Amino acid sequence: MNIHPKDKLAAPQSVTTGPIAGSRKVYAAPASHPAMRVPFREIALSDPAEAPVRVYDASGPYTQADIRIDLKQGLPLVREAWIAGRGFAPVEGRAVKPEDNGNVSADALVEPCPATRVLRQGRDGQFVTQYEFARAGIVTEEMVYAAFRENLARETALGGAAERMADGDSFGAAIPDFVTPEFVRDEIARGRAILPANINHPEVEPMVIGRNFLVKVNANIGNSAVTSGAAEEVEKLVWATRWGADTVMDLSTGRNIHNIRSWILRNSPVPIGTVPIYQALEKVDGDPLKLDWAVFKDTLVEQAEQGVDYFTIHAGVRLAHVPLTAQRVTGIVSRGGSIMARWCLAGHRESFLYEHFDEICDIMRRYDVSFSLGDGLRPGSIADANDAAQFAELDTLGELTKIAWDKGCQVMIEGPGHVPMHKIKQNMDKQLAVCGEAPFYTLGPLTTDIAPGYDHITSGIGAAMIGWFGTAMLCYVTPKEHLGLPDRDDVKTGVITYRIAAHAADLAKGHPAAKIRDDAVSRARFDFRWQDQFNLSLDPDTARAYHDETLPKDAHKVAHFCSMCGPKFCSMKITQDLRQEVRAMEAEASAQAGMAAKSREFLAGGGALYVPAE
Amino acid sequence: MNIHPKDKLAAPQSVTTGPIAGSRKVYAAPASHPAMRVPFREIALSDPAEAPVRVYDASGPYTQADIRIDLKQGLPLVREAWIAGRGFAPVEGRAVKPEDNGNVSADALVEPCPATRVLRQGRDGQFVTQYEFARAGIVTEEMVYAAFRENLARETALGGAAERMADGDSFGAAIPDFVTPEFVRDEIARGRAILPANINHPEVEPMVIGRNFLVKVNANIGNSAVTSGAAEEVEKLVWATRWGADTVMDLSTGRNIHNIRSWILRNSPVPIGTVPIYQALEKVDGDPLKLDWAVFKDTLVEQAEQGVDYFTIHAGVRLAHVPLTAQRVTGIVSRGGSIMARWCLAGHRESFLYEHFDEICDIMRRYDVSFSLGDGLRPGSIADANDAAQFAELDTLGELTKIAWDKGCQVMIEGPGHVPMHKIKQNMDKQLAVCGEAPFYTLGPLTTDIAPGYDHITSGIGAAMIGWFGTAMLCYVTPKEHLGLPDRDDVKTGVITYRIAAHAADLAKGHPAAKIRDDAVSRARFDFRWQDQFNLSLDPDTARAYHDETLPKDAHKVAHFCSMCGPKFCSMKITQDLRQEVRAMEAEASAQAGMAAKSREFLAGGGALYVPAE
Repeated sequence: MNIHPKDKLAAPQSVTTGPIAGSRKVYAAPASHPAMRVPFREIALSDPAEAPVRVYDASGPYTQADIRIDLKQGLPLVREAWIAGRGFAPVEGRAVKPEDNGNVSADALVEPCPATRVLRQGRDGQFVTQYEFARAGIVTEEMVYAAFRENLARETALGGAAERMADGDSFGAAIPDFVTPEFVRDEIARGRAILPANINHPEVEPMVIGRNFLVKVNANIGNSAVTSGAAEEVEKLVWATRWGADTVMDLSTGRNIHNIRSWILRNSPVPIGTVPIYQALEKVDGDPLKLDWAVFKDTLVEQAEQGVDYFTIHAGVRLAHVPLTAQRVTGIVSRGGSIMARWCLAGHRESFLYEHFDEICDIMRRYDVSFSLGDGLRPGSIADANDAAQFAELDTLGELTKIAWDKGCQVMIEGPGHVPMHKIKQNMDKQLAVCGEAPFYTLGPLTTDIAPGYDHITSGIGAAMIGWFGTAMLCYVTPKEHLGLPDRDDVKTGVITYRIAAHAADLAKGHPAAKIRDDAVSRARFDFRWQDQFNLSLDPDTARAYHDETLPKDAHKVAHFCSMCGPKFCSMKITQDLRQEVRAMEAEASAQAGMAAKSREFLAGGGALYVPAE
Repeated sequence: MNIHPKDKLAAPQSVTTGPIAGSRKVYAAPASHPAMRVPFREIALSDPAEAPVRVYDASGPYTQADIRIDLKQGLPLVREAWIAGRGFAPVEGRAVKPEDNGNVSADALVEPCPATRVLRQGRDGQFVTQYEFARAGIVTEEMVYAAFRENLARETALGGAAERMADGDSFGAAIPDFVTPEFVRDEIARGRAILPANINHPEVEPMVIGRNFLVKVNANIGNSAVTSGAAEEVEKLVWATRWGADTVMDLSTGRNIHNIRSWILRNSPVPIGTVPIYQALEKVDGDPLKLDWAVFKDTLVEQAEQGVDYFTIHAGVRLAHVPLTAQRVTGIVSRGGSIMARWCLAGHRESFLYEHFDEICDIMRRYDVSFSLGDGLRPGSIADANDAAQFAELDTLGELTKIAWDKGCQVMIEGPGHVPMHKIKQNMDKQLAVCGEAPFYTLGPLTTDIAPGYDHITSGIGAAMIGWFGTAMLCYVTPKEHLGLPDRDDVKTGVITYRIAAHAADLAKGHPAAKIRDDAVSRARFDFRWQDQFNLSLDPDTARAYHDETLPKDAHKVAHFCSMCGPKFCSMKITQDLRQEVRAMEAEASAQAGMAAKSREFLAGGGALYVPAE
């Protein structure tokens, strides 16, 4: 992919919009908040007996049927009234500095997104974070919104009763039949969930991350010194959320990253995460040894003011941990981890992130930026999984979690990486134990190292399993992992793969509503409602295209067979014929007996059901 | 994919040949059998300190560098001398009948493969099957070959000692440090493994399927009434084995299937499985009610004489089980299962497969066709997983396993299907318990129903898990599952996905040699040996192509960074720099002390390793 230098500098003009095939965007409100507009995607089915299926939707306004997007204006301010009601003083804010965009020359500068927002900052003694509100027993509008969103209309789909459709094994999680705002509050207050929502990101559609909610998926985007520009990154954001990314991390490391980030934030309906050390390093010409607390602190403020919702902070990489990596096969593979390790070792000094952790908390609290405590020493290979370095850092992350909570901050914990299947559960169990059940957020893990080009799959296996065991959010891996930066197709493949993993985990945990969609697909499949099967799938376009490769005619979409077996060998057709025989027998039996009740009695006899009428 | 009718009839002319990029085919012999030529694929690495990595290779002669293939002659007869030495009487064999090819008219007939072989049949009282030899304590040449193949040269790679590189949790399997011919024999004798090898398939390169061996992968090919012809099916066979299919099932259901099968068998280095009921149904014009024992028996003999190595026999679908499926969401989804259910119900009679099971065993024994006892009532949706119908059939399969063993036959058991993660282990545990540890052979299972178009992934998750728990062979699922017949790309994607699942399972079980390849990839990755990383991967072509999309220049293949992070942010580069510092310090310390021993003592101090020299 060779991008023309000029294109890399252009301001984003347009992005992918319009509904996902076969569905429409709907908004609904909880009874207590009739003005609230909580998004869902609704898939209407062709069988009148089948209720439409409502699915979780993280795609923002972009998937409305008639939407007109002006990227320069940014998205509607979903949270503005709520935030405005909390009494934060507007502030002037930090002036943009040349180094924020990598000291790029005027002719190579990407212009910032011109959308203006009121800039806010919380004060000491005031509730700012969702954690502080929750601890005080206060239910915020964000909690109401996120709770309603989690239920997937299951009050209706499950017939109004708190009927648990699913069995499952949740390994000690406490998944409720229905999610109430109070439940969201309590989970946040216990530290078991976070609601990442910077007070300077009013465009966010609130969502909650925790073991007792639907498993979430994060997609990474971001330019590097080598490839890609502003327009491409905004499109990746919109594209990733279209297919189901619940949050997006902007991992840009090249120039213009301040201004590219402004386009991303003003146009993102999902929480945005970053790794501030990347930009800090850019500001010191890429030399880790020049990093210091001052430049890092300034970067935190810069990004918090822009509205970033969560920061990866690698404060668990301590001086004493680094020698533990010396005998590893793949050393330190986290960028942030290796930067900090180098910094610590060069001066034989303790990490400034660890030493200034209190101050980091104070800054992040003022904007409600959530912590994503980075796993800088995560294993980069099967050989290094679950080793002393990894677990020493995890212990430190547990210690830091408690400090951040004391400071009023929301916290989640990052996890590996590369882990063979038999070592995955140990990661989850240890994380729950040492981090006080703070949400776990893992990258994969990849269950083998031998398939570069297919690491969405090597890691999708591990992600499904660790999601089942209790991980709250899964960071996607694309087919290009280890090989190059993902393009648009890779982003989609990565997101869909991780939606599969997350959903498989929800099913296995026994999420009360997860099975609704599986059962709808299965009924559509069995009834040969091809269009319904396509529309209910995670990727209707691909399902339809694959089908049409071998049976392209419209008539075949209502045909009671498909190209796999042809009409004579279709097991579903044969089984349907069986059922028709049963129904015919039922009708005949009913007529003969003249009494429906007696017929049902007879038919309840089981095996006799199928005896052909003589 | 629209194939011209003429092309569908053409005899296969050529197939894909040549080595997989970055590797060469090698043959090696166990010390006891110096004339034996057991195939491996060897990947030489660019670092002279790195030994070449030898990997399992199911691709047959097609991947030799200088191979000339004549499909009309068929492959070399690997087993001919061994089989000839066992005293089987050559027989005339059954004459080909018009219905064997679907009564196709002369102008629509695919010509049969002209390669001629001696046709053999075992007698009563003579050892025919590998099971019979094993029970008698005899080690066959096939067992020697398969044992040597399983070791992956690990005697050498692990330094000659039986050092177990891997930890793992095998759930009670008994994986040996080294596989001996006697171990293979004992596993076959206990019924815990099969070595599928029809005495009329001398082209087979022997391999073993069992819980205590490497996890195997099956790929399905086959034409249907709707699509594809002879040349395409032979190419799919060669293509599937090229990427790692250990066995191939020919699920053809259209016309010409007898003759297409002759091309497949004469040119297949891997065991071929079929589902004879499909062809039997073709012979009675596709009407299940016209099936009877006579036509089925005749089909068994027809296919056994051709050399098919294992038959799926749906003898577990009994009349009494069928009503158990009446309330299912997706009824009966196995083609064989639905055919037999319809037959049973129509006459309210017991399955002729069940009633004639003794005779089926007698026929299969005479040629050493292994049983693959079909799961005709496997669940076709998450909703139907682990239900009464499924487990009732499994109980019957356990009963039939013991009968088949008594008759001298080899047996494996087919398993589901669609199963959420939390119900997978129950399948494995129950199968082990009721089927006397006969090898389990599962289709996936798919862990969710909501992703048609991506069912290689939904099922790859389940396959990795059930492989870990003890499944011996995984039947692949392609991206086209539920939507259409797989093309060449789909076959490759399916096979690679399942090789990932199988390898992840081997790692998690603690297979002694599995980790060699992962570690080699990881070292190559950490050393920026890009070509080695590509060549060691399951699919070197894709890995290389993905890398080259963003960094196409040759120089970048030795560059110490990649497009993901660029040179400044490369964690591996930073960690390497750290190690260089350590080495420099080592050298300096050594020089200063004048004594290497003292230096090593000092360096063993751990954290102090990294103190910069003042």
